[in-house]
Amino acid sequence: MEKADLLFIHGYVLTMAGEGVGFINDGAVAVAGDSIAAVGDSGELLKRFAADRVIDASGKVLMPGLIDAHIHTGDCLIRGVSQDIRNWMQHGMWPFEQVLRPDTDALMKGSMLNILEAVKAGTTTFCDFYAPMNELVKNHVKIGTRARIAQTVNEMPKVNRTKVGELYEFDPAEGKRKMEETLRLFRDWHGRENGRITCMLGPQGADMCSREMLEEIRQLAEELDTSIHMHVAQGDREIDQMIKRYGKRTIEFLDEIGYLNERLIAVHLTEATEEETKYLASKGAGMVLCSGSIGIIDGIVPPAAAFLEVSSRLALGSDQAPGNNCNNMFNEMKFTAILNKCKAKDPTVFPAWKVLRMATAESAKAIGLGDQIGTLEAGKKADLIMVDMRQPALSPVILSPIRNIVPNLVYSARGNEVEMSVIDGRIVMENFKVLTVDEASVVREAQEAADRIAEQAADLFKGMEDTPLMQMMAAGKL
Amino acid sequence: MEKADLLFIHGYVLTMAGEGVGFINDGAVAVAGDSIAAVGDSGELLKRFAADRVIDASGKVLMPGLIDAHIHTGDCLIRGVSQDIRNWMQHGMWPFEQVLRPDTDALMKGSMLNILEAVKAGTTTFCDFYAPMNELVKNHVKIGTRARIAQTVNEMPKVNRTKVGELYEFDPAEGKRKMEETLRLFRDWHGRENGRITCMLGPQGADMCSREMLEEIRQLAEELDTSIHMHVAQGDREIDQMIKRYGKRTIEFLDEIGYLNERLIAVHLTEATEEETKYLASKGAGMVLCSGSIGIIDGIVPPAAAFLEVSSRLALGSDQAPGNNCNNMFNEMKFTAILNKCKAKDPTVFPAWKVLRMATAESAKAIGLGDQIGTLEAGKKADLIMVDMRQPALSPVILSPIRNIVPNLVYSARGNEVEMSVIDGRIVMENFKVLTVDEASVVREAQEAADRIAEQAADLFKGMEDTPLMQMMAAGKL
Repeated sequence: MEKADLLFIHGYVLTMAGEGVGFINDGAVAVAGDSIAAVGDSGELLKRFAADRVIDASGKVLMPGLIDAHIHTGDCLIRGVSQDIRNWMQHGMWPFEQVLRPDTDALMKGSMLNILEAVKAGTTTFCDFYAPMNELVKNHVKIGTRARIAQTVNEMPKVNRTKVGELYEFDPAEGKRKMEETLRLFRDWHGRENGRITCMLGPQGADMCSREMLEEIRQLAEELDTSIHMHVAQGDREIDQMIKRYGKRTIEFLDEIGYLNERLIAVHLTEATEEETKYLASKGAGMVLCSGSIGIIDGIVPPAAAFLEVSSRLALGSDQAPGNNCNNMFNEMKFTAILNKCKAKDPTVFPAWKVLRMATAESAKAIGLGDQIGTLEAGKKADLIMVDMRQPALSPVILSPIRNIVPNLVYSARGNEVEMSVIDGRIVMENFKVLTVDEASVVREAQEAADRIAEQAADLFKGMEDTPLMQMMAAGKL
Repeated sequence: MEKADLLFIHGYVLTMAGEGVGFINDGAVAVAGDSIAAVGDSGELLKRFAADRVIDASGKVLMPGLIDAHIHTGDCLIRGVSQDIRNWMQHGMWPFEQVLRPDTDALMKGSMLNILEAVKAGTTTFCDFYAPMNELVKNHVKIGTRARIAQTVNEMPKVNRTKVGELYEFDPAEGKRKMEETLRLFRDWHGRENGRITCMLGPQGADMCSREMLEEIRQLAEELDTSIHMHVAQGDREIDQMIKRYGKRTIEFLDEIGYLNERLIAVHLTEATEEETKYLASKGAGMVLCSGSIGIIDGIVPPAAAFLEVSSRLALGSDQAPGNNCNNMFNEMKFTAILNKCKAKDPTVFPAWKVLRMATAESAKAIGLGDQIGTLEAGKKADLIMVDMRQPALSPVILSPIRNIVPNLVYSARGNEVEMSVIDGRIVMENFKVLTVDEASVVREAQEAADRIAEQAADLFKGMEDTPLMQMMAAGKL
């Protein structure tokens, strides 16, 4: 008999291998160390493996852990202070950010809350994009999540005096400092924790870095053999800056400086045209679609359908808590399907199976971890979740003539049906409780830090009484 | 001191009275018998009331129970068998329905599961629309929910031999039988259970009943002093039938026969033009918007924005489990806000406070219960929920300078944060568990019934191998 640490049996297995969902009835998954030893029929695996622990998954789905391909966990502490308005950043986020950003303790408390929230909804891998990532990464180490992280890098001056509509001035000294932070992140963290932590490069946007800096980053990506995680065509302000500075739109410019290839993870594409999107896809770049966030902030459904015409390297991300306002990949799957159906006025587009792949197998490829995660296959890392299909919203299970499991995971699951989570072979959540942190303490500590931030932000809202959220406050609508 | 049965103290209270959300910090709600005795400041109510039970709501929201203004609970058993396709009814629902509909035991088991699912997400009032409602109503009696029910009435023959595109033939004998069932429903149930159960009239659609029958129903609504709950302009097939039969579209026809008034609860309006919608609204009729269901089934965002230009009597409904696929009013609020933002390409429309009113105060008015429920005010029925804001997805709470409670309830809540539910003064759910039924038994019995239905339906899918869901099955995509 072969040895296994964990043997899950009698589950509804979705391997997500191949083209579809890879359903196995009465399926089993054997985990040895940090890896999947085998996936198959329960009877077979019970004969083949002597396991330290056998887990009965009857009535439950076993599937790859979900991948959040774009999240800013440091922003979680100000969840819900900025939505239902234009100028989301200036009239809601910004005054809070001014006190939040310098308070590393608050950033850490918020980030941990955000990771906890997401883990409880089945996320096992986080593309966390923030500064200071050298600090936030410690939360991922502690709670036990897989993190593919990027330090936000730009060349914006500490105090930005640019008026709306004017070209930003860059501060090369600031850029240099941030690049040094990025190199330190790689030195200190890349490949750590049994490879669970990996680093990417993170230019904030093509408008916020000089051409020289962007070229340096491209070269560094080759040397470090990693991905470039970057907001691309994320707003009309970005496009305006690009045209003013270079006389061309973002994607044409990125093509010119050699960014359009498999290393690029292009986040949002909110303002990209369908033609630009297809061109970017044809060059091998991945796309991260943040349906909830862009829906709330901009009222826009990005051109993901155009991307899919050319490439399947489409991943989903939950973005930041202020302006989504949740970080739950079940939420992202559902919004991705329904928003795109309504955009196309066609209920057949973005079917459940395809959207589930965007949060697992295709996402893993898009973020450069396709050889390690995203499917349940022997040899891959053991990142998997067990979902209780006996929760009312996922019941009943029908296996034939039409199986309802995948549609109900995408269209009905709330996230709280995820009962167990295994990351890198370690049980991080069991019986709906995260084992590696004390959940109540995480919530309490985040609340304490938020109280402090809110108190400090109060002054910064003075003189903003005519902004929409302050008016909603005055009118008793918040 | 006045007597109270329950006194909730130290909560974040959202009364939903007046125009906004009626926020009270450190708020209290006193419940005496089936009614709200007082709402106000905790200190004041603690002095004023001697309560049998005092409940500490620190860190929790107290708000009106949510109203699902359109649900077919009998369909729950086939959740997830029909989506991502055109001809949702013919290629998914219908073969299952043929075996489900005659099996009253299966309908009852599914309906109870559906009600349980919804109660666990904060729904306290159900506009349940089905046949045989004389049976399904017993589930609402048992679990303790408020139900405003309608027996589906139409004049369609038992076996419909009409070809696609042809005018339906009516069977007056079938119509007569169904009207008798409706009258029996009123006789047996209207006003029962301390008024918790009330009945409406439920013509299935203007295309499925003769003009004579619709006129009889209108007259009956006056005599019985109740609402008419009806699908209106729900599909292009309906409009086609109306033009063929009467030479006019649905809303013009309904105007002619005196349906456009405050008694009408017009469900869907999927195919209504903006002009028709505004006209209907101007006549005082209510609208029920089923965002999730119509998004999945049709890829359409109905003209609710046009309705709101004229009237605030807009309610939300979750429709049926096959084709939504969940029945969770938090899901409906979130989709209503974001789908309408994307339709209008404007993040300011359908703000959180307005959408929360559509599931509470405005909904109550639209369904004809505005004097009884929908807000927390002295004298109203005690239908309220307590939501735990210390769940990770709703944390932290920020009270000022910008309060984040309402946006997080609409955009982040999954539904499972609802900890307690009081309906008609009775605690139906406490500590996240429904007290009036055994949750595990409800799920298990629904699963057993679903197994039976699936087995019987298998034969009916023979010869349907070329339909899209059967092809997805064959391709390993379900």
